This record gives sequence, structure tokens and C-alpha cells, in this order.
Amino acid sequence: MPRYALELEYAGTGLSGWQRQAAGLSVQQVLEAAASRLALAAPVAATAAGRTDAGVHAEAMVVHLDLDRAIAPARLRDALNFHMRTHAVAVLRAAVAAPDWHARFSATGRAYRYRILARPARPALLAGRVWHVDRALDVPAMDAAARSLLGRHDFTSFRATACQARSPLRTLDRLAVSRAGELIEVVAEARSFLHHQVRNMVGTLKLVGEGRWPVARVAEALAARDRAAAGPTAPAEGLSLTGVRYPVDPFA
Amino acid sequence: MPRYALELEYAGTGLSGWQRQAAGLSVQQVLEAAASRLALAAPVAATAAGRTDAGVHAEAMVVHLDLDRAIAPARLRDALNFHMRTHAVAVLRAAVAAPDWHARFSATGRAYRYRILARPARPALLAGRVWHVDRALDVPAMDAAARSLLGRHDFTSFRATACQARSPLRTLDRLAVSRAGELIEVVAEARSFLHHQVRNMVGTLKLVGEGRWPVARVAEALAARDRAAAGPTAPAEGLSLTGVRYPVDPFA
Repeated sequence: MPRYALELEYAGTGLSGWQRQAAGLSVQQVLEAAASRLALAAPVAATAAGRTDAGVHAEAMVVHLDLDRAIAPARLRDALNFHMRTHAVAVLRAAVAAPDWHARFSATGRAYRYRILARPARPALLAGRVWHVDRALDVPAMDAAARSLLGRHDFTSFRATACQARSPLRTLDRLAVSRAGELIEVVAEARSFLHHQVRNMVGTLKLVGEGRWPVARVAEALAARDRAAAGPTAPAEGLSLTGVRYPVDPFA
Repeated sequence: MPRYALELEYAGTGLSGWQRQAAGLSVQQVLEAAASRLALAAPVAATAAGRTDAGVHAEAMVVHLDLDRAIAPARLRDALNFHMRTHAVAVLRAAVAAPDWHARFSATGRAYRYRILARPARPALLAGRVWHVDRALDVPAMDAAARSLLGRHDFTSFRATACQARSPLRTLDRLAVSRAGELIEVVAEARSFLHHQVRNMVGTLKLVGEGRWPVARVAEALAARDRAAAGPTAPAEGLSLTGVRYPVDPFA
């Protein structure tokens, strides 16, 4: 049973997120169906570095799966892409992995990018890919507030109430807000994130950007350890998983 | 009858191009229907800086229309966007224009960008927005060949046989090919272009990028003044109108 590492790109629009769901089509389902057509017998199970919610995009999700026959990685990539061609899911890279390598447990970092389009006109070209906010935001204030979340903290205030992680402690390595014209980008990096953590941080930073919250209130919200103390959850469509880090690059 | 200048963003996917057609929904039709809901009586006609083909995108198409009542430009923008909200068409800016200002005849320059995604995996995030080519292209060779098309020439070899322009003479001010990772960008600027000129130039440059044509053959194709001497038409989906230039910025 050779194990393969895959790097996946997908547009989350119209998909029910990474994980197989009772209703709606998930990325996992699309990939597993394609991989199962390449296997000799057993249906194939795929494990991802993390779950993405419905509507969230990925530029480089990492996944592993075991096949009951050996296929050259480039052929595996092309065959999976052929079988997934009617979906907005593509395998960018494939590699043979060690049998004990695990897309989720071997990962040591995740990176996300959240994009806000701040302008009066709704997006035509970036529809479904950004959070549309119809006015300018104070980006330096948002960035200053973001810095108060860096480091190791109890992130209960920014955690979905449905979050299943055992501990609310996380170490936020990077949270930076920048602007390029009408596009505002929030980049977030950590070993791992709590459920909805990035979207809840962005929804809170937006209150600062609108001038409804002073910068210092974000640190107070963090200290409160209470979900009700922080801002609302930013919509899924602005979020993209941009990369997963491993001690050794599985595709090198 | 006040005249308004509008800057439009649209995703060409699923639309039949700028111009009203017997079949399919055009950008003109979407905009005119929205504008007609704001007029007191007459149906409203809109005139664009140029036509874009079915599937071609625009980041900043410029259009004019006359309304039989005065509306503040920001309100006009918002009202049009409201009525066009189910389509991938948005008004970015609106301004009052002089009665003799003409979106097409007053324009002194058009800029386009063509994007090629050169990698084995088909696009998931950029589906419908790029030309997918499944191998790397020689970008420096494409750029060298592009330079041989600069200046004033008879562009018959790069003109659609259906082109209705009286003269095949055009002055190409800029044609540059660059690469950012897997994305190859061709930027083209001229006072005006012939029908399919950008797509025919890109389809020809791709032959150079693949090594099927030597760089010098592009100049020979130009000199031949024969459509059959140049390469095929690149697909519409990679093309975006990025801007229209006027002696005085209508939105300033």
C-alpha cells in the first residue's frame, strides 16, 4: 500500500468544505471518488492537513492517501485531475510519502490568507473570493490590533462554540494586515488554528477597521476568554488556505 | 439628457461579450436593462470604448449613456449595481460627462492583459480566467518575438477575417511577456486593436514559447500580411481589458 502526498487547489464555492458531509459535495468526496477509480479494489480514504469550511478556498491543501497499487506520482496527478475535471478541484503535485507520514499529524504549520474587497461596488471578477465591504477600512489600525493577538494565548474568544479541539491554547506566529488598492489582505500563520479562529479574528479586526472598536479592545476581547467578547465570524468566501508546512517538504 | 461615463468590471464567463446579440446575454444588455429602470421614459442605449468577445473579461471597460434625468453619479453607480446584482457585471465608477464626450471616439488608448497558466494541472481557482497550457513556455523567447510586433504595421496577419475595420494599420505601443511562477502575462497597449488582434498575437507567441517557431518567424508572419501565416487565436477566457485611456480622465 504505497502512501502518496498530494497538494490540492480548490475553489470552495458550491462545495461543502473539505470533509465529507451528509448533504452537499465535499472536496474529500470528489478526491476519494477519483482515487477509488484508480485503486484495484478497496475504496480509498483521503486525510487532509486540516478541514476547510464550506466556501473556503485552498491554494495548497496537503492530503495523503494509500493506494493498493504503485503509480508514478505524475501519472497519479494527471489521472486524478482527469477524473475530477468537472469539479473546481485540482492536484498540483503528487509524491510518494513514507508509510508513517501523515498529512495532518506531520504538519507543523498552516498559513491562511483572508481577502476583503473594500469599495462601494460589489465584486464582479472576485465574486465568491472576497468579503465585500462597501467602504474603506483603517488598515494601519487593523494591523496594530492584529499584533496584539500574536504569540501563545487562550483563544477561546475567537473559537467557534462547536470547536472540538481539546485546548483553546494556540500560538499565533503571524497576523498581518496590508492593503493593495481596494484589496485588504490578512495573512495568518500558526502551527494550528481553532475552528473559525481566522474568520473570527478577521471579523473582529474589521470592527477596528471601521472605527467601531478602538485598537486596544481586541486585546481586551482576547483576555476575556469569552466568544461573546469578540466580533462576528467573517464570511467563508474571503478565506484561502495558502500552505501547510512540514519539517521536510513532502514534494521536494 | 445628461451624459454619464461609467467604468465597468465584468467576468466574461457565460456572457456573450459586450455587444447585444440575437442569442445569449451580453454585458450591454445587462447594463441597458438596469439603466432603463432608472430612466423616466425612453429605453437607454449604452456605448462602450470597444467590444469584447464572449468570454473576455474587463477590469475597467468605459461606457457612456444618456439618461433623461439627472442622478448623482454615486447614486447612479449604486442603483445600477443593485439592478445588475444577479450578473457578474459591476459599475466601479460613474461621472457626469460632457454631452459630446464619447466612450469610443474620445478614447486614445486601450490596454489588455492575457494570462496563460503554464503547468501540468488544470486551473481550479483560475478556471475561466486563464489559458491553460500543460507545459512550461520559453518566456524570454516569447518576449523577444513580441518586440518584433511593436510599432506601426499592417496587422492583416493578426486580424480576424471577420474584422470590420477599414484599415489593417495599427500602432502597437506595448507588447510584453513576463512570468510570475506558473502564470505568464502578456500585456498589450495600442490606440486601438483589430478584431482578435491580441488573441491572434498571443496564439502566435505561444508557438514561440513551445519552441515550435523560432523568434524570427513572428516578424515574417507579420510581413506576410496573410492571416494564414500567423498562429491560431488564443482562447477568449485568458483575455481581460484592463483599461481605456482618454486625453482627460473622465472620472477625475
